[in-house]
Amino acid sequence: MKNYQKIYDSEINKLNKRFNKLFGNKKPESLYGPSQYIIGSGGKRLRPFSVMVSALAVGGNFRNVYNAAVAVELLHNFTLVHDDIMDHADKRRGKTTVHIKYDLPTAILTGDNLIAYAYKSLLKDCKNDCEKVFEKFTQGIIEVCEGQSLDELYEEKQDVSIADYKKMIRKKTASLISMCCSIGARLGGGKENEIKALEKYGMNLGMAFQIQDDYLDLFGDEKKFGKALGGDLIEGKKTYLLLRALEKARGNEKKKLLKLLRNKGISKNEISSYKKIFIKLNVASDARKEIERYTNLALKSVDFVKNPYPKEFLLWFANFLLKRNF
Amino acid sequence: MKNYQKIYDSEINKLNKRFNKLFGNKKPESLYGPSQYIIGSGGKRLRPFSVMVSALAVGGNFRNVYNAAVAVELLHNFTLVHDDIMDHADKRRGKTTVHIKYDLPTAILTGDNLIAYAYKSLLKDCKNDCEKVFEKFTQGIIEVCEGQSLDELYEEKQDVSIADYKKMIRKKTASLISMCCSIGARLGGGKENEIKALEKYGMNLGMAFQIQDDYLDLFGDEKKFGKALGGDLIEGKKTYLLLRALEKARGNEKKKLLKLLRNKGISKNEISSYKKIFIKLNVASDARKEIERYTNLALKSVDFVKNPYPKEFLLWFANFLLKRNF
Repeated sequence: MKNYQKIYDSEINKLNKRFNKLFGNKKPESLYGPSQYIIGSGGKRLRPFSVMVSALAVGGNFRNVYNAAVAVELLHNFTLVHDDIMDHADKRRGKTTVHIKYDLPTAILTGDNLIAYAYKSLLKDCKNDCEKVFEKFTQGIIEVCEGQSLDELYEEKQDVSIADYKKMIRKKTASLISMCCSIGARLGGGKENEIKALEKYGMNLGMAFQIQDDYLDLFGDEKKFGKALGGDLIEGKKTYLLLRALEKARGNEKKKLLKLLRNKGISKNEISSYKKIFIKLNVASDARKEIERYTNLALKSVDFVKNPYPKEFLLWFANFLLKRNF
Repeated sequence: MKNYQKIYDSEINKLNKRFNKLFGNKKPESLYGPSQYIIGSGGKRLRPFSVMVSALAVGGNFRNVYNAAVAVELLHNFTLVHDDIMDHADKRRGKTTVHIKYDLPTAILTGDNLIAYAYKSLLKDCKNDCEKVFEKFTQGIIEVCEGQSLDELYEEKQDVSIADYKKMIRKKTASLISMCCSIGARLGGGKENEIKALEKYGMNLGMAFQIQDDYLDLFGDEKKFGKALGGDLIEGKKTYLLLRALEKARGNEKKKLLKLLRNKGISKNEISSYKKIFIKLNVASDARKEIERYTNLALKSVDFVKNPYPKEFLLWFANFLLKRNF
């Protein structure tokens, strides 16, 4: 079996070199400085890799989709800059967020301009039959906006169900990864049924990815996760863990969880007592089961891939996400 | 000669009917309610009309570019929603701005989503050879963001020249109108030289349009302009009038203008004394000359149009903008 981690690392390295000089010399500096700051500040680059591995899966290669891979990362970074404003976040990947480091107008404009640069980059890989790629890409943005809007709505809503939550993360997170796989497969020369299958792969990986994110926020390794644990509890975010706990809890535990909802969060020193409730109710294990279920659905949908190299790579990537602690 | 005003009014009416039900039933309401609010709140619809008249100019017709016309208006409305946040504006077209009526996250998301819907609408008119249309459209967004960034920058900069100002309005306003003419001409079936000529038409009309905007803000008819006169002076905006006055003023007048710059604006009761300086320095007449110069450049660039119907319509549209008081 090939060393997929090594291939992945080397591709991400190449991408990062591109990102590191993407906006360097562009004017006005007041717009492109912040753009360079956010796009050069690291990140897992999972979305570009989803594009690339999907091209591989249908017999294409990384070179076919390099600009599309850059495009989805630009798009992802637009969502980060704007979401950080909406969430009043002051840190991202350990660095000061754009609207704090610069100002609000700069952050809004930086995000807007990143959308345009995403399309610009995508265009470089779309020479023929680009309508469907553009359609999917555009629909991806719409889904993200709708998902973020639901997320904002759920902040105020008291009775969010797990079904509501899944609808929201499907739009906000999973649709974008599904879109990445879709355009990667199409630009890689895939047939319609192959493209559809890879869209499912991406959608299910995306669901697993977001529930994993919720899980790691409380049960991850603080050093590897890159930020303090329990942030979602402090902010009162309606994560999978909290919503599942609300379903299962009774009596005093239920009361305590409802108090968190009413107060829209807890203080830092209350994290451990809430963590204890979650452990007692077994919601961490429920989350792991959901993550595995979605990962298995993802893997099932790429059964059609027969060539061992891309097939193993798709499995490796799913497992890489499943086992991640970052 | 045909009644162009009537044709224009009837087309705008048709467009408005489309705009009035664009987002009506879409969910989540928290996202599409504000989208409907802004797109349904009127406006001159000059950008869609620029698309349409350009298609006509190259032998195409309005039907070819209807969705593209919708697209540029969606894009324009995205810039309005986000610019109003940056400018702390509380009114737009006599109605409360989106970020005030709803909230900041809603306004950011509404603008973002409008960009995606603009692309979505554009795609409907781009069946073949869509790359160049998409390229131009995307470049239009980049120019607008760069222009807005310069505008923000100039708020702080003390020594803005008329050349700086023109560079800014070229990007922020004129490029978008040029883009409208470009995609209208391309989708209408124009040849490369015709498309280039119509891009120039749009660029020069756009320059005239923005200087006219500055002019009307102080010398317009309050009722027809739709807002109180002198708003730019109150905010200390570096308009054509102010920058030209700064070039020409000497002695006490110069001192007074510099005081406005230092204080980043004046109070309402000072407007008339500043207006007097502008009248004495003849800057209103300078502005009119610039507006006419750009309008003539626009008209010259469409000399190639020989068919009387579109030719007269292009002239009518330029004159309509030149004589507007709204």
